[in-house]
Amino acid sequence: MPDILHRVGVDAPAQRVYQALTTIDGLRAWWVEETSGEPRVGATINFGFCDMQVIESVPDRLVHWRCVRGPQEWLSTEVTFELTQSDGSLAAGARDVRYGKTKDGQTFVVFKHSGWKEPVEFMHHCSTKWATFLLSLRDLLEGSGGHPYPHDVKIHVGD
Amino acid sequence: MPDILHRVGVDAPAQRVYQALTTIDGLRAWWVEETSGEPRVGATINFGFCDMQVIESVPDRLVHWRCVRGPQEWLSTEVTFELTQSDGSLAAGARDVRYGKTKDGQTFVVFKHSGWKEPVEFMHHCSTKWATFLLSLRDLLEGSGGHPYPHDVKIHVGD
Repeated sequence: MPDILHRVGVDAPAQRVYQALTTIDGLRAWWVEETSGEPRVGATINFGFCDMQVIESVPDRLVHWRCVRGPQEWLSTEVTFELTQSDGSLAAGARDVRYGKTKDGQTFVVFKHSGWKEPVEFMHHCSTKWATFLLSLRDLLEGSGGHPYPHDVKIHVGD
Repeated sequence: MPDILHRVGVDAPAQRVYQALTTIDGLRAWWVEETSGEPRVGATINFGFCDMQVIESVPDRLVHWRCVRGPQEWLSTEVTFELTQSDGSLAAGARDVRYGKTKDGQTFVVFKHSGWKEPVEFMHHCSTKWATFLLSLRDLLEGSGGHPYPHDVKIHVGD
């Protein structure tokens, strides 16, 4: 089954990235402004158009959600955010040397939205949207401000 | 095998989108500023870090490339840009009604970068970069200007 994959690097410690992924205030500042609910393991976060149950949450390392309400194509799909701190020795940092210099200290967010049944056109749309939201997370943490829905980056007319 | 999928909608006729994908000046304005080569079927376009052979080119409908030189993970991978004009009757337009109103007349660019052997971390990186370049294409065609490499949107420190 196809997955949506992304990666961004954030000039902030993993602790701050983790906080933005695991607090209502954090999530409101980069993904959906009207987020509510309980961001602890086993509980559910309400993002308006969908509910995500928190499956796993490892401080400064991993956040794992499962969609329990939302667009039909999202039902039972899973979203993971893996955080790796680049210290020059990690594979992530090492590999990056080939594609541009790596500054130590940034936190890489390795993102996956898996469990899609088919690579429908809506999946293409969501892939592009996730990229813009991960850059919103990055912008929030680097100080220039997030752009959560409904202030999100638009990717088509009428988005 | 996993694919990178994206979709953006451009407020421009398919003819203009196709032109930006099939002329050296067009490609220079949204993807890689130092692009050179021959953008006709069977020939090769040099994007600096990679060469793409043009496999298929259907006016206002489809552009299809194969990577014949570049990062090891890209060798033999294929990139397709499918263009669909939203006229309110197409599935693309119809489906979008669920996720936001669709304005007739825009051109959807349905993008796929396929043939990756493994979902390596570099693939995550490239997925996010493709999103930013497709929005660069959109911005170019909507008049606010593209941001081709090396003026591209950065997605990690040192990108």
